[in-house]
Amino acid sequence: MTSDNQQTAINRWLDRIQVVLVNTTHTGNMGAAARAIKNMGMSRLTLVAPRQQPDADAYARSSRADDILDQAIITETLEQAVAGCSLVIGTSARQRYLSWPLINPRQMTDEVVKTLQRQPEADIALVFGREDRGLTNEELAQCHFHVNIPTDEGFSSLNVAAAVQVLTYELRVKGVALEQESLPDWQDDWDEEWATSEDVERFYQHLQQVLTELEFYDPENPRQLMQKLRRLYQRARLDKTELNILRGILSATERKMRSGS
Amino acid sequence: MTSDNQQTAINRWLDRIQVVLVNTTHTGNMGAAARAIKNMGMSRLTLVAPRQQPDADAYARSSRADDILDQAIITETLEQAVAGCSLVIGTSARQRYLSWPLINPRQMTDEVVKTLQRQPEADIALVFGREDRGLTNEELAQCHFHVNIPTDEGFSSLNVAAAVQVLTYELRVKGVALEQESLPDWQDDWDEEWATSEDVERFYQHLQQVLTELEFYDPENPRQLMQKLRRLYQRARLDKTELNILRGILSATERKMRSGS
Repeated sequence: MTSDNQQTAINRWLDRIQVVLVNTTHTGNMGAAARAIKNMGMSRLTLVAPRQQPDADAYARSSRADDILDQAIITETLEQAVAGCSLVIGTSARQRYLSWPLINPRQMTDEVVKTLQRQPEADIALVFGREDRGLTNEELAQCHFHVNIPTDEGFSSLNVAAAVQVLTYELRVKGVALEQESLPDWQDDWDEEWATSEDVERFYQHLQQVLTELEFYDPENPRQLMQKLRRLYQRARLDKTELNILRGILSATERKMRSGS
Repeated sequence: MTSDNQQTAINRWLDRIQVVLVNTTHTGNMGAAARAIKNMGMSRLTLVAPRQQPDADAYARSSRADDILDQAIITETLEQAVAGCSLVIGTSARQRYLSWPLINPRQMTDEVVKTLQRQPEADIALVFGREDRGLTNEELAQCHFHVNIPTDEGFSSLNVAAAVQVLTYELRVKGVALEQESLPDWQDDWDEEWATSEDVERFYQHLQQVLTELEFYDPENPRQLMQKLRRLYQRARLDKTELNILRGILSATERKMRSGS
């Protein structure tokens, strides 16, 4: 559990959501789900009538998300697990017996946001079924929405921990997007300053001069050589260190040519 | 493998992308990755120097994605695995030694789409590192982009199969979106095919050799010179003509040095 002073807005948001695993058979899946929950900055796991209690296998697969397993709530029925919840979303491979509001994972995050905007302390449950046959019709009928993760029609059965991973990931991405207006761009986060246009122009002049001396560039018959090289380096957007390296290579080439001839 | 007549546009699109697992320790992770690949309608898995060959554990965790494991390509190095690829994206927990174009999973799908719109038969690799320490700096330097899956800062190490699940899911979601919306008539005026990784690697070797002869690069004291040059050219993503020009410049430099001395 993240301590209070470390808790950010996104963690508080994600803490409203519990992952509920119904009647899970393999304890390894409980562990993998616990790891996914903690990786995504969430903390709440509920096990409804697990076939086995979390064991060594669960802890191994959790990869040190022990706290999530230790604090997991165990209930006998789904009804008990979701009793205090304002929004219950069940995972479902497809529409089965009776059509129900069926949403995709991104729509799921919208529903979560709407709920928490109206009611910041609401409890929300995300419910995952059995490894072999998912949730029963009765269980699905306790949900407000069914969420479907898109899969290949010919091979559609997802591992339950993989499904937990995908949906918790979507929730985190949504949380990050809410915290930051736009996602960070690598161009804003480069470890060097960009070279100025002026300096880059001097490099192109130097390059042309050296290529002429190398008899690689013929000013009488320029074709598109300099344009193509410009396009390449403009596209990369040179930083200051890179520009220094390239200028250094040109100077070293000149020295060699002059000392050699 | 889906038979030809069952193959839809989305499968053909997803089939351009191979998942590459580098130096995987746990065969269970290979199996779980194979399952995720098949669930998302993809088919290509490459194992680079796996610590063990896929075994019973791998097949159990693959849950009948046997074909993906059976057809997995095994190579000794990452270089061999990505030799024919036009776009190589490596997964990375964070910026480490040298910043590199760092994108999020949605931006990754945009790069894949751009590549396949310009060059529908391009091969694309999505590279995942070791369970305990990800990809090495050398491996990361063979990529055009690094993709980072957002995680909680305090617990950021994702299981490798979970990372495969998230990124292949994002690719499928993108593929579904492309099939559903009619694509904007996105016309790129790029006039050349991209160079393959194999040819670009040969250029780096040639470059290092010429820089050594120029006494600009000192193999005894390499500092970060070659990494910085790699980063520059990887970021620009060289096309075939550009690569020919750069190789031509290196050859002209060699001729001058040899004739002069």
